[in-house]
Order: sequence, then C-alpha cells, then structure tokens
Amino acid sequence: MSQHSAMPSVADTEIDLAMFGALGDLALRKLFPALYHLDREGLLPEGTRLVGLARQDLDGEAFRQQVADALQRRVKSSEQDKASLKRFMARLDYLKLDFASVEGYEAIRAWREGSPRPMVVYLSVPASIYGDICRNLQASGSLDDSVRVVVEKPIGYDLESSQQINDVIGEVFPESRIYRIDHYLGKETVQNLIALRFANPLFGTQWNQNHISHVEITVAEQVGIEGRWGYFDQAGQLRDMVQNHLLQLLCLIAMDPPSNLDADAIRDEKVKVLKALKPFVGEALGRDVVRGQYTAGTSEGKSVPGYLEEEGANTDSHTETFVAMKTEVANWRWAGVPFYLRTGKRMPEKLSQIVIHFRQQPHYIFDPDQRGLAANKLIIRLQPEEGIALQVLTKDSGLDKGMRLRPGPLHLDFNNAFPKSRIPDAYERLLLEVMKGQQYLFVRRDEVEHAWRWCDQLIAGWEAREMPPRRYPAGSWGPVASIAMITQDGRSWYEDY
Amino acid sequence: MSQHSAMPSVADTEIDLAMFGALGDLALRKLFPALYHLDREGLLPEGTRLVGLARQDLDGEAFRQQVADALQRRVKSSEQDKASLKRFMARLDYLKLDFASVEGYEAIRAWREGSPRPMVVYLSVPASIYGDICRNLQASGSLDDSVRVVVEKPIGYDLESSQQINDVIGEVFPESRIYRIDHYLGKETVQNLIALRFANPLFGTQWNQNHISHVEITVAEQVGIEGRWGYFDQAGQLRDMVQNHLLQLLCLIAMDPPSNLDADAIRDEKVKVLKALKPFVGEALGRDVVRGQYTAGTSEGKSVPGYLEEEGANTDSHTETFVAMKTEVANWRWAGVPFYLRTGKRMPEKLSQIVIHFRQQPHYIFDPDQRGLAANKLIIRLQPEEGIALQVLTKDSGLDKGMRLRPGPLHLDFNNAFPKSRIPDAYERLLLEVMKGQQYLFVRRDEVEHAWRWCDQLIAGWEAREMPPRRYPAGSWGPVASIAMITQDGRSWYEDY
Repeated sequence: MSQHSAMPSVADTEIDLAMFGALGDLALRKLFPALYHLDREGLLPEGTRLVGLARQDLDGEAFRQQVADALQRRVKSSEQDKASLKRFMARLDYLKLDFASVEGYEAIRAWREGSPRPMVVYLSVPASIYGDICRNLQASGSLDDSVRVVVEKPIGYDLESSQQINDVIGEVFPESRIYRIDHYLGKETVQNLIALRFANPLFGTQWNQNHISHVEITVAEQVGIEGRWGYFDQAGQLRDMVQNHLLQLLCLIAMDPPSNLDADAIRDEKVKVLKALKPFVGEALGRDVVRGQYTAGTSEGKSVPGYLEEEGANTDSHTETFVAMKTEVANWRWAGVPFYLRTGKRMPEKLSQIVIHFRQQPHYIFDPDQRGLAANKLIIRLQPEEGIALQVLTKDSGLDKGMRLRPGPLHLDFNNAFPKSRIPDAYERLLLEVMKGQQYLFVRRDEVEHAWRWCDQLIAGWEAREMPPRRYPAGSWGPVASIAMITQDGRSWYEDY
Repeated sequence: MSQHSAMPSVADTEIDLAMFGALGDLALRKLFPALYHLDREGLLPEGTRLVGLARQDLDGEAFRQQVADALQRRVKSSEQDKASLKRFMARLDYLKLDFASVEGYEAIRAWREGSPRPMVVYLSVPASIYGDICRNLQASGSLDDSVRVVVEKPIGYDLESSQQINDVIGEVFPESRIYRIDHYLGKETVQNLIALRFANPLFGTQWNQNHISHVEITVAEQVGIEGRWGYFDQAGQLRDMVQNHLLQLLCLIAMDPPSNLDADAIRDEKVKVLKALKPFVGEALGRDVVRGQYTAGTSEGKSVPGYLEEEGANTDSHTETFVAMKTEVANWRWAGVPFYLRTGKRMPEKLSQIVIHFRQQPHYIFDPDQRGLAANKLIIRLQPEEGIALQVLTKDSGLDKGMRLRPGPLHLDFNNAFPKSRIPDAYERLLLEVMKGQQYLFVRRDEVEHAWRWCDQLIAGWEAREMPPRRYPAGSWGPVASIAMITQDGRSWYEDY
C-alpha cells in the first residue's frame, strides 16, 4: 500500500474474478459470503463479475442456487436483503472445467473476451494442481499483465516442497501479482497491531528489549481433528499453525518499523525477523520446545476421543497436536526477550491472543505484599472476540485501601468502541485488497520460505533426537511441561482477559 | 506514609476529634458527613469521640440535631441507615466556646481528662483566629504530644501573611503534627496520579520531556461568586484556585519519583517542582498569562449578571475571575514542556481535568490527510465524574477504511471498573489520613510558601504593568486571548472526554 493509494476508500476498478474450486468448502463457507458482504457494502464496483469454476456439471442457475444456499446458511439473516442478494447473484457465472486439461480453459478466455477489467484468479484448490492451472491458463491465452493469482496455505510441507509450489506459480506469475493468503493477516486486530505500534508513540517508543520483558502468542483451538486425521497427521501442529499463523503474528509484533506502508517495505521487515529467529539447537530442543498429543478427555462437557483413537487414526503416530516454544528474535531490538508461542487442538477454549508484557518498574514504592502484581500488558485478542486491552495498575478505590494498587484493564472492545460497525471477516478484507491490487497483507515468497527453513530445522532436530510428543488430556492447556517451560522463567501463560 | 504503615487498612487508634467551627458551613456540609461515612464503613474505631466547638449556646442534644439535619440533607438516603446514624450520633458532644478567650478551654481539657486517645484539632474557622485557638489550647493545658491540628486554605493572602499564619501555628505545633488540607489531594483520581506514574512503567518511563509535549490543567467552575463577592474580590482566581489546587496538581504531575511514599519524600519532590517553576518576567507577563473577568451572560440556560453587577460589587474592581497561563518547570525532566493552566468562574461547565499530551511519533506512515490526528493523551478527570482515559489511535474498523486511523479512548471509569465501590469524598480520605497520622496528602509549610512566592511575583508584575482583566461573557471558556495563547503554539485546550 503506498501512502497515496491508501486513500481511496473503495475498490478502484471493476474486476473479473475467477474462482477455482468454487464448490469447495472454503469457497462456499467463506469466500462467496465475503464477496457478498463486500457487494452489500458497496465495495464491488458495478461491472465486477465472478465466475465459479469446478469439475461438476452444473449450469449457471444451479450454481447460483448452491451459492444462494451457502449464503443463507452463512450470512446473518439481518444482512440478507433481497436487493443485495439479487445484485450479487447477477454477477455470478459458472464454467465446468477439468482443471488438468487445457481444453476447457478456452471458456475462460471467452468469458474474458473484450473485458477491460483486470482478472483475479483465486485458486481455492489443493496446491498439487496449482501448476496445472497456471500452465493451462497461460497456454489457453487467458492471461495478460493484469491477472493476479490468489493462493492459500498450505504452501508446501517443508522448504523444498514450498519452493516447488512457488516455482510453478512463479513460472507464470511475477511475485508482484501473487497473493498468498494467511487469513490471520485479514483480521482487524492483527492489522491493528500496525496502527498500535506505528501510530502511537506511547507504544512505539517502548517496543523493544528495554521496555518489554516477554511476549506471548497463544492460538488455542477447541476443536480436534474434525475428520481430517489423515491430512493433519502428515503435517502436525507446527506445520499447520506455527509455520504460517503464529510466525506471521510474531513478525508483525517484532518487525522494525517500515519506512512506509508499501507492501515490500513491510515484508522486507518481516523477512528480517524470520531470518533473525533463533534456531533450536542442542539442549534448546529439549528445553525450549514442548510437543504434545492429546489423549481422551472432555470438550465442552462431552467426552472426546484421544488423537490416536480418532477415526482413521494410525495408532502409533507421533504427530504433535500441540506445540509450545520459547524462542527469541536475535537482533538489537529483541535480544533477551523471550517469545513464548503455543498452539494446540482440544484446548479448553478457543482463544487466540497476543500479550505484550512490559517490564516491571525499576524501583517499587508501594505495599511490599503487592510487589508481585503484574506489570503493564497490552493484550490483543483475535478470538473469540476481537479486542484490545491495556492492563494498568491504579489505586484501589476503597477508603480502607490506602495506597493499595489494583490491576484494571483499559478496554478497547471493538463492539463497544465502534458499535455501528460490523467486524468484517478476514476474507472480506483480503479479497478487497486483492481487488485493489495491494499486497501488504499477503505473504511474500521469501517469507514463506524462511518460515519453512526455521521450522524444518526444528523438525529435523525432533527427528534426530526421536522426541515423541507428550500426552495431554483433551480439554487441558497442553502437557504439563509447557506450563513448566514458562514457570521456570518466573512467568505464566496469561489466560485472563 | 511509610512503606510499612501503608498496610494497616483501618485507622489504627481511637481518636478524640475537636471540631472548631462545628456549626459552620464546611463542617456541616462536608466534615460531619465525611466522618459519618467513615464510621459507617467501619473506619472509626469504637472509642473515637467527636466534640463540636462553636460560639452558639446549644446543648449536646440540639447540636446533634443540627448534625443530623445536615446528614439528612447531605448523605444519600440509601446510605442513611439507623444503626449507623445512631452509632455516629453517640460519638458527638458539644461545647460552647468563645475561641478568643482562654477560660472556656478548660472544658476541652476536662473533655479529654484521662483519655488515652490522641487528639485531632480541626480548625474549621478563619485563619485570623488560628493564633488565638492555638495559644489558648496550649495555655489551658489541653495539649500534649499527641495532638494534631488540621487547617484549611486560604493560608494567607500572600507569602508574608501565610508566613504569619504558619508562624502562629508553628509556635504551638511542630510541622510533623500540622495537617494543611488541600481537598484536591483527597480526590481518588488525584491520588491515582501517584499510582499511574509510579506503578506503571508504561507511563513512568515516558514521563519526561523526551516523550511528553505538553500538559494541560483545567479547573473550570460553572458557578459565579455565590454571594461572597467581598471575600473573593480581595483574592481573585489566582490566589483562590491556582496558588493551591492547580499548583498542587502540577506538583503531582511534575515531581520526580520519590524514593518511597513517606510524606516528606513526596513533599520534598513537590517543593523541588515549586522552586523550579519559571517566574513570569518581562514580556512573558503579557504573552503567557491571561487574566479575565466575566461579564453578563448565560449559565445553564439562564441569564446571569457580570462580575461587576453581582450583589455587593465594587464596579471598578480589576480582580480576575479567570486566569490562564503557560508556565514551565525549569528542570531536566521538563525543560521545554509547556504546562498550560486555566481556571475560571462562570465557565460553560464544571470540568476539572489534567491532560498529558504525549509527543507525536517521529515518523508518520499513514494517510497524509490524517497526519493531524491527535497523538496519545492521558486524561485524568476529577470532575464532574472521576475517571481516567488513555487516547490511542487504532485502525478504523470499516472495510472501506483501508489503513485509516481512528482515535479511540481506552477508558477506565471508576464507576464501571469498580462498580461496587462508592467514590469517597475527598474529605473522607483526608480525615482518615489525619486520624492515621499520615501526612503525605497534606501540604507542608514550605510548599505553601513557595507557591505564594511564585504567585506573588506574578501579581506584582500585574500591578506594576497595570494589567486589567480581559472581559469574557459568563458561559464562555474565558477571554479569546486565552484561546489564542495556546493556539499560537499549534495546540488547543482539550474539552472532549
């Protein structure tokens, strides 16, 4: 985003959007509802058209019906108004396509024929067919310099496979037109990190090892495997969550201030963070990382099976469903500041939050028995409800309290602060940015690859040392060792809000 | 308050409290209601006794009736419970006393006879009779080393008269047993300044000229002269409000961190601030100070007379009812940071607040047209409702807003944050501290005198230059020149909350 292009408040140009995998789960559950919301808010210019592409033999009417059904399930009824639905449906076309075969792509060229609009190609399909699609688009003459391509995680399984995927896309598209989605970057509170850090000197001037003692990032899922055991077991929590979401959050927290908001200015800074991430070597592997795998337990009051008892499970899997780690960004800004990361499935609740812990004051003058009271914290919560809170200590207000302190949050709850505004889904923001041609919320190739490089060395360490995961019961906060890891530093995971 | 004595949560010892001027306005309106509240909250130990002293010829029963009537008017009915009222009334005695004549004081000695309790002598009377009372207490043998004396503003009219008053009290009482009240120091939010600054490194580390651009203190009264024209006209707003309340607030904001919370550790730091206050000399007198006097206008929708048309007014008075100034604390912490002070009568609303403006960030990367958006501010409001808010810039939440910013307050409203606790009146806190023998919320002799010294030079400058006050209509924010004074620095008075 350049400083000037930051100003237009709606998508500037009409777009032709081609959705590959238009009948897939993600498209129906997230992408079409997001596009509908954009349309309803007047953010799709009049001429913008959408074409769904899939293998199924449907006509346009049947496709629109499927989308309409999905909207009905996914969009609040108060936001389903007839005029908006009608306008949105009128934008939709459908083309049956065998992605692997170049023949059908002629239909895309025909759909585009004479269109002055840039095209966005959204690949909501497995990475294994990115190559086919890109090559066939090119071979069929459907591409021109306006075409942007959107892809989703997982981008590979390790550095090598991610490079292969990036290569096949890169053969056809230049980096400046590739939009790699990490939907965490579309969340309001995540973008708010940029505003909080760089628009507020109160935080900006303290954002370093002189003032911050440690940082926590928790992404706790309440769900288990959700019927995709086979898929997940190939990956594990590190690849599935840390390599992308948690490291992206870490980058936004830790990056040096970019000189401007241009996509590459920001992404250059993020890459610097990834390069500076300390690898886990030697003792650190056993000391600073905890792998976990859930056993039978309870979730939302119901008994649930362990990971090895899930449907389709291979009972001797050593795949982790939980990982906690203490890492460090080895640079001038962050040396000595631990970043505690943890993410797991079957946690007691769905909770994603970042907690920035500021250092304790150097000298303490209040009641000695309150010395342990927490220092200032900035809490940025992504889930379940987006919000920001700043923890401060104030004087307790009781008359009998003298100068006793009390921790009190200064809350910025988006629902309270901005009562009229709906919090948009991450995909709405991301689709809008793609249509505006702004890449700052998308992941650049070198980011993906540096993140893999770091994860790969960790996985290699696990494999070399044969480190099986520790057990934790479903419905707990992970293996006891993950608590001990932070406790032995005299700290604890922050679970309050 | 020593670090150890900070801990007891109730008054440690029973007290004999002698209230001089027990039938006066302050005593009936504020002091007895405050004592009642303390009693009701269990903060007056069982044996604590109160004796009212005044000229009127009443018996105990009639006195208690007057106090009871005052409580009925002043205490919320939900807080008037029979058991508490009964217990409180049983503590009250009355002695008729001609303050000027030593004879009657024998009765005080008799009232105290054999009491093991320390005595608190509250002089709710004009300063002109402090001397008589102190001497007569001593001459009658009513004093011992346990006796503390409480006095109220105004402590003099200028440095010389305040020294005289302090001398007559000081002949009888050592400084360690003199409690000079500035009731602003009893307000919860004012004490919260100490907690905010010294318990929160987020603020503490930024509390200096590197991070703070300027400070505002506004104490706006909505009322006019309220029937005391003659008294007020001798003083004016500078003596009546700035010399005490505004300078006390300024001291708490500006003081260096005390090594501990002992009364003298804090007051030593406050005195350093008063000594470092820049005097107004030469051009600064005309440029950095604005005197005002209200003319006819409106207040709360009604027409009100001008200051010179009030009952009893001397129509050629040049006394100011408003003063605004830009001053500076000339030391290492604050050099170059303006402190903008203003206080006046007949303002549009009753508003007392402190606004700490943090500096803008050194580099700006958001939309150019939002460059003027306010930087971080910490707003500490004393009236009408006590509260603290921190102004931060966040990302505007609308989808069409891109990376546009939005100023949003993080609020700590005491009523919301601590819903169960009543905010005690300042006098409750102050009376409790007197009874505990803790002086940190009271003004030391050298504080009073340094404040006068600074005000005296300003008044001398006005007189030497014959600077009449500028007119402002009742119901406005003061003379236009007071707006211009801050506007020409590229700033404005903060009136939002």
